[in-house]
Amino acid sequence: MSKVRVANFTISVDGFGSGVNQRLDAPFGDRADNLHEWMELAMAEREQGRTNAAVEQLDRYKDGVGATIMGRNMFSPLRGEWADESWRGYWGENPPYHHATFVHTHHKRPSLEMDGGTTFHFTSEPVEVVLERAREAADGKDIVIAGGASTVRQYLRAGLIDEIDLFIAPVLTGGGERLFDDIGEAMREFTVTSTAAVPKGTLIKLRR
Amino acid sequence: MSKVRVANFTISVDGFGSGVNQRLDAPFGDRADNLHEWMELAMAEREQGRTNAAVEQLDRYKDGVGATIMGRNMFSPLRGEWADESWRGYWGENPPYHHATFVHTHHKRPSLEMDGGTTFHFTSEPVEVVLERAREAADGKDIVIAGGASTVRQYLRAGLIDEIDLFIAPVLTGGGERLFDDIGEAMREFTVTSTAAVPKGTLIKLRR
Repeated sequence: MSKVRVANFTISVDGFGSGVNQRLDAPFGDRADNLHEWMELAMAEREQGRTNAAVEQLDRYKDGVGATIMGRNMFSPLRGEWADESWRGYWGENPPYHHATFVHTHHKRPSLEMDGGTTFHFTSEPVEVVLERAREAADGKDIVIAGGASTVRQYLRAGLIDEIDLFIAPVLTGGGERLFDDIGEAMREFTVTSTAAVPKGTLIKLRR
Repeated sequence: MSKVRVANFTISVDGFGSGVNQRLDAPFGDRADNLHEWMELAMAEREQGRTNAAVEQLDRYKDGVGATIMGRNMFSPLRGEWADESWRGYWGENPPYHHATFVHTHHKRPSLEMDGGTTFHFTSEPVEVVLERAREAADGKDIVIAGGASTVRQYLRAGLIDEIDLFIAPVLTGGGERLFDDIGEAMREFTVTSTAAVPKGTLIKLRR
């Protein structure tokens, strides 16, 4: 049975998935530069042929995943109507997803086929409908809800998420988009199954 | 110069210092039983003559502290007017403070002198005034803002706190009193100076 996973989502000690003033030259906003330092360090470790809990998470993110869902702010620093179709995501012509990737947005736009198997689909449908489409595209594999915080919250509120691999980074953004907010009693369905210290982060696994 | 410190305050992964439904038989509320398990384990380690970062924190809490400030909900499970003066705190006749301890409450009550040097003073004065009284009582030593979350937040909002030793416990309360909420930009004045994994907790030191 395919799972719906939040994979390697990172929050600050004060609970934010991004700082204020997200923009092109600071996609995660102010005071969030070091939020994903654990990931850079893990990538460097992996290049050296070494491993640790963070390196394992890099691989686990992709293992058995057949579709990704994200919010528009994760795809683009632009807000409101699409002026044109020149913005093609933060990841260049060969994004790291390599499968169907659904982008929640109120503003219509044709699907965008990239190199390497990633196709971005833009949708204003409810989360349940988008998840069904993603499930079909994933063909038995898992679905990752990639972020940002408000997109994850929508799926949490709807009770649609099975597991969360969370990192807490030694960073204070002092504001921004909070992950565990306005989700009612959703977290009462989860338990913490493990905790691990890694360089520049604490990995906490939450399972329904 | 004496410091104003939040010492060993513990929050859940979802950011709460206590769960919902705080009451006499569950002072920290629902789903919060294991919030302070790190502390019980540290006390057991200390009894065995062993040490680690959590054991060091037990000692550090008290080192050079001359006054404590807390909210009424930390002193008592009772709400509203004091029916009588029979409630004398959660700690028995010899509380672990051993110095002047100020309790924020809207409801007047005479000071309460306990064994071992602790005197509880009940006050509805503003945080700045209470802190001045505590500073005088501390006589050059540090002042600990003990909790709960809403009391810590009041002092954070007023910019009065110098350092926070925070534990994040592998617990989800799914609701309750959030620590880092409604404090404006207060946390932008702080940096994370260290992180340490301890059994059943992550210790994070925040300094102004």
